[in-house]
Amino acid sequence: MDILSVLKDLAIIVVFAKVFGLIARKLKAPQVVGEIIAGLVVGPSVLGIVKLNQFLDICAGLGVVLLMFSAGLGTNLKQLLHTGVKALLIACSGVLVPLIGGTLLYMGFYGFSAIGTPQFFTAVFIGVIMTATSVSITVETLKELGKLKTELGTTILSAAIIDDVIGILVLTFVIGFKNPDSNPGFVALSTVAFFALSVVLGFVIYKAFKIIDKRWPHTRRIPILALALCFGLSYVAEKYFGIADITGAYVAGIILSKLHDSDYIEEKMDINSYMIFGPIFFASIGLKTEISGFTWELLLFSLAFVAVALVSKIIGCGAMSRLCGFKGRETLKVGVGMMTRGEVALIVAQRGLTEGMIGSQYFTSVILLIIVSSILTPIILKLLYARDEKKQAA
Amino acid sequence: MDILSVLKDLAIIVVFAKVFGLIARKLKAPQVVGEIIAGLVVGPSVLGIVKLNQFLDICAGLGVVLLMFSAGLGTNLKQLLHTGVKALLIACSGVLVPLIGGTLLYMGFYGFSAIGTPQFFTAVFIGVIMTATSVSITVETLKELGKLKTELGTTILSAAIIDDVIGILVLTFVIGFKNPDSNPGFVALSTVAFFALSVVLGFVIYKAFKIIDKRWPHTRRIPILALALCFGLSYVAEKYFGIADITGAYVAGIILSKLHDSDYIEEKMDINSYMIFGPIFFASIGLKTEISGFTWELLLFSLAFVAVALVSKIIGCGAMSRLCGFKGRETLKVGVGMMTRGEVALIVAQRGLTEGMIGSQYFTSVILLIIVSSILTPIILKLLYARDEKKQAA
Repeated sequence: MDILSVLKDLAIIVVFAKVFGLIARKLKAPQVVGEIIAGLVVGPSVLGIVKLNQFLDICAGLGVVLLMFSAGLGTNLKQLLHTGVKALLIACSGVLVPLIGGTLLYMGFYGFSAIGTPQFFTAVFIGVIMTATSVSITVETLKELGKLKTELGTTILSAAIIDDVIGILVLTFVIGFKNPDSNPGFVALSTVAFFALSVVLGFVIYKAFKIIDKRWPHTRRIPILALALCFGLSYVAEKYFGIADITGAYVAGIILSKLHDSDYIEEKMDINSYMIFGPIFFASIGLKTEISGFTWELLLFSLAFVAVALVSKIIGCGAMSRLCGFKGRETLKVGVGMMTRGEVALIVAQRGLTEGMIGSQYFTSVILLIIVSSILTPIILKLLYARDEKKQAA
Repeated sequence: MDILSVLKDLAIIVVFAKVFGLIARKLKAPQVVGEIIAGLVVGPSVLGIVKLNQFLDICAGLGVVLLMFSAGLGTNLKQLLHTGVKALLIACSGVLVPLIGGTLLYMGFYGFSAIGTPQFFTAVFIGVIMTATSVSITVETLKELGKLKTELGTTILSAAIIDDVIGILVLTFVIGFKNPDSNPGFVALSTVAFFALSVVLGFVIYKAFKIIDKRWPHTRRIPILALALCFGLSYVAEKYFGIADITGAYVAGIILSKLHDSDYIEEKMDINSYMIFGPIFFASIGLKTEISGFTWELLLFSLAFVAVALVSKIIGCGAMSRLCGFKGRETLKVGVGMMTRGEVALIVAQRGLTEGMIGSQYFTSVILLIIVSSILTPIILKLLYARDEKKQAA
């Protein structure tokens, strides 16, 4: 890995992501689908001209952080507080149903087992992998559709954020039950501490930015310091509170969302995002995939895994959203918007592997879930919105 | 090196670079000086909170590539052709004088030696290290002063580009004389081939971009494809023609400089540049420095090395620019603008180390030269321009 190979990789990724993104848009699918397929095409599965390396991997990570920061910046804080309770309920239900679904799936395939046995924990862990929604693709899709700042968009986004936190809590609880080293109570406490700190510190930071913004509006220092806050809070969240870095980035965005220049910051972030880091992130999903080493049994399990993961999320979130007052097709949009899985599912699976709870073969299932959900979510969401507009026009 | 440590490093670098940059500007020095000092302060020399790693190093490399691409985009092609001959003459003289100066300096310190002895080659190599100008800091300074697109700015820029090529030719010749493996004639040929290809292919690429630009003006695809061209040509230049990647980036910029949307591309590139990659590059110069391991003899040699490198470049370029028709203080501006050394000097020194021509202790001298010239060039250039404006105002 040196600058030369990075230059080559970046040139290829940037061109393929853009071209496939444009083709996807021509076919009425969102651009992100094209970018993921671009990663598949240039990666080891098809052409094999780009190999994921550490540099690209870190850039992909920065891409998610920037996406979440941008999503936070665009948040309507009033609406977030307004949708807070609904989002919490939807998130809880959206964690519980897949958790049970995944556990039952594994037991259905490999036999039921008593509570507390290793096989029982493996079954539960398959459920845990299914819990965390990855909202980045939904965010990008809603953004493309211009629906991110609607009540529905904010609800999905908040629910997905809360759902990440719950997912990580569940992970820690499950590991904690098996391994006395980790302390679930401590994790819950540090999560509460992080959000409490974010409110207090966030208020101070917001006031400081407001002063800078008033004295030097529309100057470079504003997006630059905002970027530093985004990186800094992402780091602090994960390093000192054990919360995913992307949650820190989202909170950093929310802190600055009421700023007069928040649109200005968002615009600059988006340029960084769509030029380099965004395409790398979406292409990296495709790059991670190797279509090989598949057995028929694993294929069957993986297909069932994907189906259960998607359907359980739609049912869990959709049903609860109906109880929360969303109507008709809107409940489907919530369910579909929440069904995408991403890097968090991979991180959870990785953790399960290190803890000896699952075997490495389940990675293939997780990657399949990520790809299928990443491709289906934007297409279905777009169709659902398009049908609404047709209805309205009629 | 993982995403967490990168997030921390980036947050620190971005904040320190901006704060020190603003302080530098307050003190009437250019921002880049502040950014280099920021690197020194956060690096191992002072606070030690950021350590240069491979990720930052590659980002710094991308930073230079983006800077050179942006410089190419802003080039007035007519003026470049107009100043071409002058620039060539200035570059040649600016290579020759430091080459002789460096050789004599080493011989003055460690005794004269006959042509062809190992010590003679070491002496010549000290001269070779001094040849290549690093134009990025001058570019940034002239940009800040709004003088990049003047005749003087274009001349300095073209001379520095040509001087890079000549520097690398000289390096290959010197190594070739000692080592029969490398073929100086082949290097000269491939350099000519690269520029010939650039003219032919550049014309085709320009036409293709013009069609895209006409059909979809001001769309994202234009800066994205431009970025891919920049990365791609940088790669091809170094990989297949042995020419520095930054030269490829500059040529890519020139190819697109006559495009209707070239300002639009430049604007987007500059945002990528000033937000992340630029600060990392300038801070990395400071980060590379460790103020330790200095002996008095080495200190004395290093100081003489810096003095000879700066003065010989000013004399070489300044005198030739006078012969080329520049007058009075302008010749000094050419000399000072050309005296900055940067990553190319380090690359040359690294090459000399691998070839067994110099010892590793001379790295300290090279880093000192880079820092001193990087700090002095912008300050002196700014003073020279400020005095002119005072005169004009009087």
